[in-house]
Amino acid sequence: MDIKKLPEGTIERLSKYRRCLTTYCKFYRENIFSHELARNLHLTPEQVRRDMMLIGHSGSHKNGYNIEELVEKISEVIDCRGKTNVAVFGLGNLGQAIVRYLQDKETRLNVEAIFDVNPEKINKPFLSVDCYHIKDLKRIIKEKDIRIAVLTLPGDDAHDMALEIAEAGVTGIMNFTPVPLKLPEGVFLEEYDILTSLEKVAFFAKK
Amino acid sequence: MDIKKLPEGTIERLSKYRRCLTTYCKFYRENIFSHELARNLHLTPEQVRRDMMLIGHSGSHKNGYNIEELVEKISEVIDCRGKTNVAVFGLGNLGQAIVRYLQDKETRLNVEAIFDVNPEKINKPFLSVDCYHIKDLKRIIKEKDIRIAVLTLPGDDAHDMALEIAEAGVTGIMNFTPVPLKLPEGVFLEEYDILTSLEKVAFFAKK
Repeated sequence: MDIKKLPEGTIERLSKYRRCLTTYCKFYRENIFSHELARNLHLTPEQVRRDMMLIGHSGSHKNGYNIEELVEKISEVIDCRGKTNVAVFGLGNLGQAIVRYLQDKETRLNVEAIFDVNPEKINKPFLSVDCYHIKDLKRIIKEKDIRIAVLTLPGDDAHDMALEIAEAGVTGIMNFTPVPLKLPEGVFLEEYDILTSLEKVAFFAKK
Repeated sequence: MDIKKLPEGTIERLSKYRRCLTTYCKFYRENIFSHELARNLHLTPEQVRRDMMLIGHSGSHKNGYNIEELVEKISEVIDCRGKTNVAVFGLGNLGQAIVRYLQDKETRLNVEAIFDVNPEKINKPFLSVDCYHIKDLKRIIKEKDIRIAVLTLPGDDAHDMALEIAEAGVTGIMNFTPVPLKLPEGVFLEEYDILTSLEKVAFFAKK
């Protein structure tokens, strides 16, 4: 299978398998069965085995998967593009949370630049990452070879900003603003809306 | 249709329709067509019309939906449980972002309590919301009639904490920690993992 054609769901689960294996499993044991990995992530064992087949990995009937080998295989697939430089747009609480989060985790995603418009934030590093004025985005994105933009700006300017960012060469945008974006083809977009999730929980939570 | 049986996807979209209508549409006009609403949110007009049918709302062929009426109808459905009290667990950057976000938005979700373990944060209000020690969660959840818990704690303690929170009477949990949770029946769980989303964007972003 051409790994570039892996379904989005598989990629999401591979990321979760790896996190589960490196964070919660590796200290205790050497092997893990598909049904154990499945239980940890609330999936079916069939789903886990199907994902493993898609990336060409197999375990043994007797011992399951060797954890170290499996982590290595998953990393080969999802980190296939090597290190990826990320810029965070908006250094409010959410922007700060994301910069900190990515620095704390084992991941190939490097935050290489932050953008904001607040003069008190610009030209001061945050957790060792430089913060630039948004008007310089074109130059900085090119200079630092930024591939991914994470938007945590207020919604009002999000759309125009995203178009400018895409034009500057970014090929993946993670949109945390409440405004759904429409981007040129060739730019991969993922959106997440905190309020929608919370309103859903409120609706389905029993009274 | 019994609105308690509405599918999760419909509830998510209703939340998004309302946001779109109240934020970006209401200043410009009185009516909107299903295809316009669909385009704004990257849906099909059929999907929008199906959702409206499910909540028993219809527009006119000539003028589409009246925006004010539609917002009112959606609010009747998704706010049917009235005001919902929320507690945020963990007052790091993400916790702070969520408290601020919910206070800024028109929503029936009220953050009534924050929990943390850091003595420098406890007993000081953050944006007028009191911050308590996690050991008092049982008492505070009952006293303040907290229905929804938002978890932004480090992953290590998330599972035990969530069980304790559920036992105290919370019926909906929004989990932002990287640890997937297994909760008792009757507690609605929604999970979101930032790193998984970002790794997915990195994978699919063209080089």
